[in-house]
Amino acid sequence: MQCPVARSLERVGEWWSMLILRDAFYGIRRFDDFVQSLGIAPNILSRRLADLVVAGLLERRPYSARPKRYEYVLTEQGRDFRPVLLALMNWGNRHFSPEGPSILLIDTQSGQPVELAPVDLHTGEPIARGRHVVIAGPSANERTRARVEFRNAHLAADRH
Amino acid sequence: MQCPVARSLERVGEWWSMLILRDAFYGIRRFDDFVQSLGIAPNILSRRLADLVVAGLLERRPYSARPKRYEYVLTEQGRDFRPVLLALMNWGNRHFSPEGPSILLIDTQSGQPVELAPVDLHTGEPIARGRHVVIAGPSANERTRARVEFRNAHLAADRH
Repeated sequence: MQCPVARSLERVGEWWSMLILRDAFYGIRRFDDFVQSLGIAPNILSRRLADLVVAGLLERRPYSARPKRYEYVLTEQGRDFRPVLLALMNWGNRHFSPEGPSILLIDTQSGQPVELAPVDLHTGEPIARGRHVVIAGPSANERTRARVEFRNAHLAADRH
Repeated sequence: MQCPVARSLERVGEWWSMLILRDAFYGIRRFDDFVQSLGIAPNILSRRLADLVVAGLLERRPYSARPKRYEYVLTEQGRDFRPVLLALMNWGNRHFSPEGPSILLIDTQSGQPVELAPVDLHTGEPIARGRHVVIAGPSANERTRARVEFRNAHLAADRH
């Protein structure tokens, strides 16, 4: 699939993949530590780690020669996944944590919780429906163009 | 699971769920339009739509009495998922679109592509590792605290 959301999900859309990446951001690198944090079956963890290595999001590095052992470290592409995890965290805190947040993103300079939002760095403006819209890019195929046109037709209909 | 990322994924982590939400943001509401956009098997689409309704992200509304037909519209919680999709889109455009972006988020006031980043609205500062960190919140359980402590120990070790 051509859509960038779909391409992202081809790499991280399997059950566990995003939680493995979350743990990698907590500094977890070793197989047994992932098992303990996630409560995941070892055979499934093996498969997911291998997938994430193939996708270029984790790098497999030896840390012991005898016995031969590997650890899994975020690549640059993997580290760049952080905004997705932060957005999922924020959404979960807002809507699915009735007992209050279990984790909080804070600004270490002020000690205050962050009020997270996606912003356009060019203007400093938070992304808002209406002002910021998705358009077909130069390499859009027919299906992508059809979706954008569907959206435009729908928006036009809403206005009437 | 208690982690807000995990709770979010419990609602949208199945294959197709996030792509269905993406299409809902394009204004797609009807079963046949989802089938056409996604190329998804109808029985799987039925199940995913039902899951998203139970999760409170889509609302099922009748639009025709005879034959009885329903459409699926984003709820407020569902609309609030947009930052996650934007982050996935941005990540996909950066890393997995070697032929150039197929869709672009633009600012309609300037016509320019958005440079998307998560920002703390309190300070206007982009989220940066080091300055912004995750801490255990008031309702954190033992597993959450263990992850945060693992991270702290790991960061301390990195500094030595």
